[in-house]
Amino acid sequence: MAAYDPENIFAKILRGEIPSTRVYEDEDTLAFMDIMPRADGHLLVIPKTPCRNLLDAAPEQLAAVMATVQKMSHAAKNAFEADGVTIQQFNEAAGGQEVFHLHFHILPRHEGVSMRPPGKMGDFDLIAEHANKIKAALD
Amino acid sequence: MAAYDPENIFAKILRGEIPSTRVYEDEDTLAFMDIMPRADGHLLVIPKTPCRNLLDAAPEQLAAVMATVQKMSHAAKNAFEADGVTIQQFNEAAGGQEVFHLHFHILPRHEGVSMRPPGKMGDFDLIAEHANKIKAALD
Repeated sequence: MAAYDPENIFAKILRGEIPSTRVYEDEDTLAFMDIMPRADGHLLVIPKTPCRNLLDAAPEQLAAVMATVQKMSHAAKNAFEADGVTIQQFNEAAGGQEVFHLHFHILPRHEGVSMRPPGKMGDFDLIAEHANKIKAALD
Repeated sequence: MAAYDPENIFAKILRGEIPSTRVYEDEDTLAFMDIMPRADGHLLVIPKTPCRNLLDAAPEQLAAVMATVQKMSHAAKNAFEADGVTIQQFNEAAGGQEVFHLHFHILPRHEGVSMRPPGKMGDFDLIAEHANKIKAALD
């Protein structure tokens, strides 16, 4: 497996070098909105420390990330009055990974509504509005 | 959220009431083959204790399951000389969940090969052969 590249875009987001729409953070993890949302409220959870994906994650990184994934799944489900939540996590390009810093996708889902196709940039005002709904659901 | 139903099929698999093709187990978790594989080597990891999905999982259930997910991701990737691994975890029917006992899907992936469509029963001899490859990769 390739080494961790500290110039990946999530590392830049963590360092504040490029903007992101943050919805939650604690000492070990960050949650922010996906800019190509496949469902309203689609967000990502990452560890603040470097690892490429699940294959090289340390147990303490996984534990911290999963706690935040669970917390954010509840918040996103409540914020959108969703009927369910889909979690996706991709490892290496063949597994669907595009940014090589461990991340979990959280997608609020509604009965009868398919996920939108991947790769389409979202509307930034709408993403900001959705982020605010999720933050409100955390309080 | 509905209560945990102890008659779900994974609970029956855990109790040995219905067969499964097991590839790994420890005190807290079980890994077995998906009978509708969307990729060769498609397997599932579950906790041995009851919870419906990620939304009601206890931290210690999540920690144990994720450790096994990671272990099995390596084993499945090595067994099939895969280029990547896709992880999926579904919560409630709208989120894609069909069996209401927490489970993570592990799918070995190869460059240029799409996942097969869901819902198609696999060949049991082939699944058993794939299970043996994964078990060998664990040794």
